[in-house]
Amino acid sequence: MSILNRQNKPADMKARKNLRNIRLLNRKKTDPGQFLFTGTRPAEKLCIQLFRYDETECREEKDLKPGDIEKFTEGRQKFWLNIYGLSDTEAIADICRKQGIHSLVIQDILDVNQRPKFQEFEEYSFLTIKSTVPKGNEQETEQISFVFGSNFLISFQERVADHFEHLRHRLRENKGFLRERGPDYLLYTMLEAILDNYFKTLQQFYRAVESIDLVGGDSEPSPAVLEQIEKNKKEVHFIRKVIIPVKEFALAVEREDTPFIEKGHVKYFFEIKDLCLTLLDTCDSLLASLESLANLFFSVQSHRMNQVMKTLTIVATIFIPLTFIAGIYGMNFTYMPELDWKYGYAAVWAVFVLIFAGMIAYFRKKKWL
Amino acid sequence: MSILNRQNKPADMKARKNLRNIRLLNRKKTDPGQFLFTGTRPAEKLCIQLFRYDETECREEKDLKPGDIEKFTEGRQKFWLNIYGLSDTEAIADICRKQGIHSLVIQDILDVNQRPKFQEFEEYSFLTIKSTVPKGNEQETEQISFVFGSNFLISFQERVADHFEHLRHRLRENKGFLRERGPDYLLYTMLEAILDNYFKTLQQFYRAVESIDLVGGDSEPSPAVLEQIEKNKKEVHFIRKVIIPVKEFALAVEREDTPFIEKGHVKYFFEIKDLCLTLLDTCDSLLASLESLANLFFSVQSHRMNQVMKTLTIVATIFIPLTFIAGIYGMNFTYMPELDWKYGYAAVWAVFVLIFAGMIAYFRKKKWL
Amino acid sequence: MSILNRQNKPADMKARKNLRNIRLLNRKKTDPGQFLFTGTRPAEKLCIQLFRYDETECREEKDLKPGDIEKFTEGRQKFWLNIYGLSDTEAIADICRKQGIHSLVIQDILDVNQRPKFQEFEEYSFLTIKSTVPKGNEQETEQISFVFGSNFLISFQERVADHFEHLRHRLRENKGFLRERGPDYLLYTMLEAILDNYFKTLQQFYRAVESIDLVGGDSEPSPAVLEQIEKNKKEVHFIRKVIIPVKEFALAVEREDTPFIEKGHVKYFFEIKDLCLTLLDTCDSLLASLESLANLFFSVQSHRMNQVMKTLTIVATIFIPLTFIAGIYGMNFTYMPELDWKYGYAAVWAVFVLIFAGMIAYFRKKKWL
Amino acid sequence: MSILNRQNKPADMKARKNLRNIRLLNRKKTDPGQFLFTGTRPAEKLCIQLFRYDETECREEKDLKPGDIEKFTEGRQKFWLNIYGLSDTEAIADICRKQGIHSLVIQDILDVNQRPKFQEFEEYSFLTIKSTVPKGNEQETEQISFVFGSNFLISFQERVADHFEHLRHRLRENKGFLRERGPDYLLYTMLEAILDNYFKTLQQFYRAVESIDLVGGDSEPSPAVLEQIEKNKKEVHFIRKVIIPVKEFALAVEREDTPFIEKGHVKYFFEIKDLCLTLLDTCDSLLASLESLANLFFSVQSHRMNQVMKTLTIVATIFIPLTFIAGIYGMNFTYMPELDWKYGYAAVWAVFVLIFAGMIAYFRKKKWL
Amino acid sequence: MSILNRQNKPADMKARKNLRNIRLLNRKKTDPGQFLFTGTRPAEKLCIQLFRYDETECREEKDLKPGDIEKFTEGRQKFWLNIYGLSDTEAIADICRKQGIHSLVIQDILDVNQRPKFQEFEEYSFLTIKSTVPKGNEQETEQISFVFGSNFLISFQERVADHFEHLRHRLRENKGFLRERGPDYLLYTMLEAILDNYFKTLQQFYRAVESIDLVGGDSEPSPAVLEQIEKNKKEVHFIRKVIIPVKEFALAVEREDTPFIEKGHVKYFFEIKDLCLTLLDTCDSLLASLESLANLFFSVQSHRMNQVMKTLTIVATIFIPLTFIAGIYGMNFTYMPELDWKYGYAAVWAVFVLIFAGMIAYFRKKKWL
Repeated sequence: MSILNRQNKPADMKARKNLRNIRLLNRKKTDPGQFLFTGTRPAEKLCIQLFRYDETECREEKDLKPGDIEKFTEGRQKFWLNIYGLSDTEAIADICRKQGIHSLVIQDILDVNQRPKFQEFEEYSFLTIKSTVPKGNEQETEQISFVFGSNFLISFQERVADHFEHLRHRLRENKGFLRERGPDYLLYTMLEAILDNYFKTLQQFYRAVESIDLVGGDSEPSPAVLEQIEKNKKEVHFIRKVIIPVKEFALAVEREDTPFIEKGHVKYFFEIKDLCLTLLDTCDSLLASLESLANLFFSVQSHRMNQVMKTLTIVATIFIPLTFIAGIYGMNFTYMPELDWKYGYAAVWAVFVLIFAGMIAYFRKKKWL
Repeated sequence: MSILNRQNKPADMKARKNLRNIRLLNRKKTDPGQFLFTGTRPAEKLCIQLFRYDETECREEKDLKPGDIEKFTEGRQKFWLNIYGLSDTEAIADICRKQGIHSLVIQDILDVNQRPKFQEFEEYSFLTIKSTVPKGNEQETEQISFVFGSNFLISFQERVADHFEHLRHRLRENKGFLRERGPDYLLYTMLEAILDNYFKTLQQFYRAVESIDLVGGDSEPSPAVLEQIEKNKKEVHFIRKVIIPVKEFALAVEREDTPFIEKGHVKYFFEIKDLCLTLLDTCDSLLASLESLANLFFSVQSHRMNQVMKTLTIVATIFIPLTFIAGIYGMNFTYMPELDWKYGYAAVWAVFVLIFAGMIAYFRKKKWL
Repeated sequence: MSILNRQNKPADMKARKNLRNIRLLNRKKTDPGQFLFTGTRPAEKLCIQLFRYDETECREEKDLKPGDIEKFTEGRQKFWLNIYGLSDTEAIADICRKQGIHSLVIQDILDVNQRPKFQEFEEYSFLTIKSTVPKGNEQETEQISFVFGSNFLISFQERVADHFEHLRHRLRENKGFLRERGPDYLLYTMLEAILDNYFKTLQQFYRAVESIDLVGGDSEPSPAVLEQIEKNKKEVHFIRKVIIPVKEFALAVEREDTPFIEKGHVKYFFEIKDLCLTLLDTCDSLLASLESLANLFFSVQSHRMNQVMKTLTIVATIFIPLTFIAGIYGMNFTYMPELDWKYGYAAVWAVFVLIFAGMIAYFRKKKWL
Repeated sequence: MSILNRQNKPADMKARKNLRNIRLLNRKKTDPGQFLFTGTRPAEKLCIQLFRYDETECREEKDLKPGDIEKFTEGRQKFWLNIYGLSDTEAIADICRKQGIHSLVIQDILDVNQRPKFQEFEEYSFLTIKSTVPKGNEQETEQISFVFGSNFLISFQERVADHFEHLRHRLRENKGFLRERGPDYLLYTMLEAILDNYFKTLQQFYRAVESIDLVGGDSEPSPAVLEQIEKNKKEVHFIRKVIIPVKEFALAVEREDTPFIEKGHVKYFFEIKDLCLTLLDTCDSLLASLESLANLFFSVQSHRMNQVMKTLTIVATIFIPLTFIAGIYGMNFTYMPELDWKYGYAAVWAVFVLIFAGMIAYFRKKKWL
Repeated sequence: MSILNRQNKPADMKARKNLRNIRLLNRKKTDPGQFLFTGTRPAEKLCIQLFRYDETECREEKDLKPGDIEKFTEGRQKFWLNIYGLSDTEAIADICRKQGIHSLVIQDILDVNQRPKFQEFEEYSFLTIKSTVPKGNEQETEQISFVFGSNFLISFQERVADHFEHLRHRLRENKGFLRERGPDYLLYTMLEAILDNYFKTLQQFYRAVESIDLVGGDSEPSPAVLEQIEKNKKEVHFIRKVIIPVKEFALAVEREDTPFIEKGHVKYFFEIKDLCLTLLDTCDSLLASLESLANLFFSVQSHRMNQVMKTLTIVATIFIPLTFIAGIYGMNFTYMPELDWKYGYAAVWAVFVLIFAGMIAYFRKKKWL
């Protein structure tokens, strides 16, 4: 990701890294009956949005108060309750309890460090997954939870994001089948939107990988490049890990009569599974590329070292013997006949030139030059 | 592959690399009911070819228009509809809808970044696989989709290729069993032709691997060679990955009563499975060879380094002490008795020669020379 | 862990390492009917604590003697018997025999080098797991065993620790559901407490990993850093290995009607499984980070070497030729015209400066400077 | 293997390597109904040998013509038809068709690049495996196919080999149970003989591995040694791969009522499975040894490099300072008081000796000398 | 193991290595009906020992002759027949045949290169495993086979060893349950004793691993250390491989009604499984330690190289420029004003000292000194 913009202040990257770690580990003993929000983001205001719709109409209610929400009654109309901002744990717990949601599920919704998971209950099913949004050159990860029954879908998001804007538009304008079909079809379109965002994130990684040119250039690659490669590997691994449970959910839908999913819609979840498999393939291929880059990195590092050593060897090997010869005729022996020869000096120069040329030829032959 | 022709402009290679990546990732939100062609190749003209055949006759219709095609009716005659060029999504969707093909399948046919897959429907089965054609020193990959029922087979190819020319010939000339047997047998012969092309592709890789000679020669291997090795590894991995679903399709046919595949023809799909296993073995063995080459590469790199260092060490170790001795007798002390000896100069030369010879003998013993 | 405080005396670390190893291997042939405590900790005093509780009351008895304990009779009241200190094997065996616990189970309780395991018997179930407590910058590992039936839970700990203080508090104050529900719910809260301690331990590892800065700084990283990385890898692997059986116990509860676990409480053990999976994910991610650090370590080591070599090469390459030139004009030939030129000395200096500047420019271009 | 005789011309090795590769890839489109022999060995003459035997007699017919062979009729007598030389595809196909063998099986017999496989038909079973014979320091690989029914066994070999000479001897002399028991027992003895040859081949590899002494000796190991190690790894992997299907065949016999294998003989195929497992263990252990050697190779290479560098460092570190001191007193300053001291020259010599001895002591302490 | 005593003559180690290899491969074609002992140890004298025992008495017969042994008849009394020394194949075969043991089992008993295995027959079960005894600093491996039925156990050992002395003592003194319970319980105590010996062997490996100190000390580690590490890895892998079948035997007992194993004794074989799992864990942890050591070895090797290079670089970088300056004033130009300055010589010394101090400061800053 951030290979692209190395001008980023490293402090930021470290901060982000800390963020994820703490999120994974921020678990505290609470008193029984109390709920804990484990996110680290500064509190987002709670924001509740309700769509009541059927084939003929679609009513939208913005900025509801938690008190306004009643138990969704079975009936002709379908409901989509969209909730952003989870830091007000009491309000969330209140809404959930009204819909008859179990307290363990409420804790799962609030614990954003959850592994993605799927659980079935008598009156509803519960699904929680991670989503990612590329934001500038960084990616942001948030947890999205879904509680859905025969005629309602409740979605919980950590903060206001535009994952589902096109779906709201389709609901309002009655495009596609959203209003005809049940909340399970709505869930499918949401999952598809979330997975499509992963494609965009992986595309950024691809571009980052391609922008690394280890072989070209003369200078030795800095270990910081390897650090970036290793960091990218870890992030792709993270994406891989959060997609697998989505694939498993789709497989579960494909295999059996999951409650609240119409038989005729199973083929759409088959598509979800295919998307997951393609994403996993892409992750694997990215990881292989990153592994290759790491190998290449070490090779280029050795290669540069080799070139440094060759430079030293060539210069030293040529001039050390020459210096020795010059040293000989710098000696102060009384009896040194060569010193008095008329062409002695010229002869020494000839020897210098001969040795120099011979060495150059030797190195040329060895392909060191 | 392209190890063979390193004279290739690197720009081209990069372009090709980009191509595959973008293909893998080129997914966009479309409006419901709209189809998207995800290929990157400049639009190939749509080209439709129909064979109607039975034991007694075979009628061939070239360059049909989409409008000319009707629903294939059950009957004595068998049909093979061969379609090249997928960029005109509307025409393709039109043809498919006439045959009663589901819109998700149509999208799968047009999305050439699909993972190979097999799906069964009530009236037809759907199979999509990747094929590869060696073209010069490069390989070209395209997606081929098959929709087949009890008396028809429709094949979709990204562009005009000569995979199946020998089959058209056999149909026309009534060679072999093609005209006697159903479209499942035709499908078998097509899969066999596609897999045979993989053998040719892998053979090119073998030749490329064998043309790399790391141990011979004097010069240090360039990291570009390692880059090529890593690139080849990735391409063989890609081939491995697209063959596995074909093997799984063949296994599925072998195990159960797949609809539209005659029981008596199952043994042919057993052959397909064997071909896939042999291809996978060949991939594994290629990958092992490439891994060995990478190991060897690092060793040869170290070895060359060692030789450079030895050269330096030998020259420096011989001449530095000699230069020191010459330096001693270059000193200007008033009282240096050796300088006035008659054979002082000759004695110093004797010392020089002795040290030189001793050093050479020492290096000989150490096998550095 | 101990990356944080390298000032630790290595002797201590070695001692600790020995401790674990010997614990794993300290198995001796005993006479039949004799029990062996395999811990290495200096004997902890046996300490027995009994809670008898139901919805209405909770009686606590501290510092019981082994002789005071009778067989728990079936009835309205529930029992929690908490035993610290296992070195008095006879007393432990005595207590266990009174409860009808099989001698193989007694040996398992006393053998603190056991792999975590779960066994079902007719009258009770047996579970043994490892717990870890961060203590300063070190972690301490101990074995905790549970024997539980329909109305009692017996826990065995190697030494007095504060794992369960909050549970005792809840029992006394009747907070939460502890007193209403059976000993299986108490077991769940205990397992949760133990797993939460693992989160704290892993958090210490994370901090240790983040405190290693290989790329910054100028000096070569010492192999001691790699030794620490490898040591951390081993410790995380150890944690991974002891969590897996806990996950398997939770899975077993989830799958079938385990005796002594109420059906309505199964969902809590589902939570335990989720905690284990998150812990395992965290271990995997820590291991990947440590692997990356090891890679980086080698790269930085090479890089520092490269810089050393560059320094040598630059200095030698510049001054060796200059020294040679100086050597030439130090020769004592009678006939050396340059020596008598008026600007000979200045010209030589000019040559020196030119070569020096040329070399610097060359190295600048090569980005070695 | 060929580590033993490095005097081998590399050209030969390359040729052999090519051979295997081409064999793996030599697949061509043939016309339907035509058979293709994929071996590369110069055509071996077809040679047919027939044993008709029962408890009382054994008639042997050598050098039969394809035309002489009739369909084996059910009866008291058992038949073993042994065929060498597969290049005359028409004759082979002819013999096979007479016995009612399916054309796909005929192609499998002729395609010597087949993966080992086992197939059951109504009237016979088909098994094809690879055998290896050590020949000098090389190993030769050939494919052996078996078609066996209730009273006959047909074996196909690429060329005349002495795998089964001891069996012919036992048949003729009525030693052991060969003549009493059915062709399934004959098949068992043949498989045993083939597997025993693998033991001999692996023994050669063991000897080759042991003959490599990397640590002893002074000279740097050549990358050619690593190339041999990598080559051996590939060959052992090849053997591993061809033994696995034999193990699976034996497992299949052990598990179920394979037709044409008597229940009472199943325990012999259990032995075959054990042989395969021991062979696979031996391969694994050989591969581990070769991996260790490769690791060691890199270490020894570094070690030699280190020794070269130490030599350079010691000589340069001692003499460069000494040369500098000699240089000082070679300066031509008018005012240099030391030059005129009486014992100046001797003092300088004392300094030389002191520095020299100090350096030697330092290197001794560092254990570089 | 032998890391501890490097003073061992390498010849011995090689001999031992050869021994194992040959044992693995020493398979020869024998005539049918003939048995082959595949051990390499010089023939151990056959030694037969019989215990007849029940709750009330225990009769021991030493040094029986093969002829003395009859078929064990069903009855109140239990038998343990202990046989040492397998080189007299005819005597062994004779004893076995009397007990109705199948000839394939006899060959398995004599073939000490067998993989550990378990086979059930109608009248008895057959189990063969490897045992190891630490002997000085070496370990000795031998094969132990068990044939056991409802009231008898026959054990076959390659040579006299004291594995089971404590059991003989318990039988004689009627300690524990040995005499009360059947031969299956005796088998359990024997397996336990054998596995306990593995713990001792692994403890030796642990001590050997801990005695390697790569980071401390100044000298470069020799490749011989790596060779030892790799050798230890291979030996631990060997132990791992022979324990796995024991675990599988125990699992088989745990799962189903194995004949000749009482239901009530199954829990003891559960203990055997646990012992195996702990041994396997210990092996894994040893292998991880050895892997870490190998990594560390390479790092320390590089580190030492780095230190050698730094020494060279520091000395050369300081003195080469100084020598150049001395060279300048050694030139013989007629016109060199500095030479005649009064403080010229002192000034040059000042320059020398300045450069020297500057260089030292620079290296200090770089932390090279």
